[in-house]
Amino acid sequence: MTRVDCRQLAPRITDLAGNHARSVRAITDAVSAGADVVVLPELATSGYVFASEDEARGTAITTEHPIFRDWQQAAGHAIVVGGFCERAGNALYNSAAVLDRSGLLAVYRKTHLWGNEKAFFTPGHEPPPVIPTRAGRIGVLICYDLEFPEMTRALALQGAELIVAPVNWPLVDRPLGEHPPEVVIAMAAARTNRVPIACCDRTGTERGQEWTEGSCVIDESGWVRVEAGDAASASTDLDLTRARTKRIGEHNDVFADRRPEFYRTVADKTRPAQR
Amino acid sequence: MTRVDCRQLAPRITDLAGNHARSVRAITDAVSAGADVVVLPELATSGYVFASEDEARGTAITTEHPIFRDWQQAAGHAIVVGGFCERAGNALYNSAAVLDRSGLLAVYRKTHLWGNEKAFFTPGHEPPPVIPTRAGRIGVLICYDLEFPEMTRALALQGAELIVAPVNWPLVDRPLGEHPPEVVIAMAAARTNRVPIACCDRTGTERGQEWTEGSCVIDESGWVRVEAGDAASASTDLDLTRARTKRIGEHNDVFADRRPEFYRTVADKTRPAQR
Repeated sequence: MTRVDCRQLAPRITDLAGNHARSVRAITDAVSAGADVVVLPELATSGYVFASEDEARGTAITTEHPIFRDWQQAAGHAIVVGGFCERAGNALYNSAAVLDRSGLLAVYRKTHLWGNEKAFFTPGHEPPPVIPTRAGRIGVLICYDLEFPEMTRALALQGAELIVAPVNWPLVDRPLGEHPPEVVIAMAAARTNRVPIACCDRTGTERGQEWTEGSCVIDESGWVRVEAGDAASASTDLDLTRARTKRIGEHNDVFADRRPEFYRTVADKTRPAQR
Repeated sequence: MTRVDCRQLAPRITDLAGNHARSVRAITDAVSAGADVVVLPELATSGYVFASEDEARGTAITTEHPIFRDWQQAAGHAIVVGGFCERAGNALYNSAAVLDRSGLLAVYRKTHLWGNEKAFFTPGHEPPPVIPTRAGRIGVLICYDLEFPEMTRALALQGAELIVAPVNWPLVDRPLGEHPPEVVIAMAAARTNRVPIACCDRTGTERGQEWTEGSCVIDESGWVRVEAGDAASASTDLDLTRARTKRIGEHNDVFADRRPEFYRTVADKTRPAQR
């Protein structure tokens, strides 16, 4: 079994030193609690609601920053995935680092930018990775990426046994009794791909922006196994080997049953046909 | 506004004459109640749980069968979409007819076959249609097709303003308080594509198979507007013009934000990478 632990922090905007300390403490706490995979929120090092590009730039870090050395040292035997505000050359990216105690395993730069992120960040040029780790094959997305079913599908087709997503979900209205809409989308992606999905949201209010506190771990059947709510963490044990088979019942296999000859439109078209 | 009415029948296995009468009555009732679009279940003419191919063949009909003339006559100003067991040459298909009072507008043959349907039916060779109708541009899927997010995406990219799906959902376990899993998948598809989805399930128990009675109409925000439960129908009014824009908020558009260069895998691969 693999213990997946989403640590629902409240990063403070531009407070790099404070966020550094908070994120290391969160990893340490998760590892003490037996985590095999620790997920931190999107932009955990910087906060989200930047007032200007200068402000984003002032908090941006490269992968050489000591925070990653400290995440490594806190990781123990766990894999850590956390969002950070990345500077590379002159560009800023909304990125996620994947690391273990041996060092950085991968950096993924968000490819689908939300809201006015477009004013600060360059969209990533590379597809999301599926990273072989001692905990299993981990695919990584960031927040709004999840709302493109092609992205979760592509990771699952590439053999991801767990998809993790650092997110910052702005609170939106929803009908009474419903999950947050982003969770509904993740549930459907998990079930249609037979792959568990762990989303680490954030808490707190930032410059008037309320967050959903929607951190959750969803199993390969698409059901929410644990939600953080207003707690510090959503943690549960998953059998990741279950994501290796796509069979359901006697007659079906959700991958073998695909008809890719009908899916070309999805890869070719960006716009609906004119009416 | 467009009134979409899913009529949750209980077809009886192999009882073509009885199912003929029941389906005409359902259309008449929906049209009397002001429906602009009437949806009937999958295999509404034949029932679902065939004991043998011979039994399926004995209930199969061509598009020349008088039932379609009667559906036309009952249609009034509405569009009717209903599932039927189709015979064409020597092949059997799990099909949906789309018609109005002027005649047949399209026939779609299910492309993703569920369970032991593979023992009786040939999978469709053509992608699902988007049909211009007086009620709007209607895309059609059948049951298990919905569980392939590429299918709902392809219809939305082709300008569908409403997706309708005749279904027969076998009842499966789900956690307390959750929607049926097929509904969760349809909710996510509706929201990620900004297109409403109407699913017409069936009721009754057939040869020991219990059905979900999950008929529902989901709006373009992904929320269930009405569910049939054990009632005869799930009907609500939708503004289908809302599906014409894919904008959300000030900065985003769920279609323009797509990055198809990363989606090739989805159209090319049928199998996950070997571990």
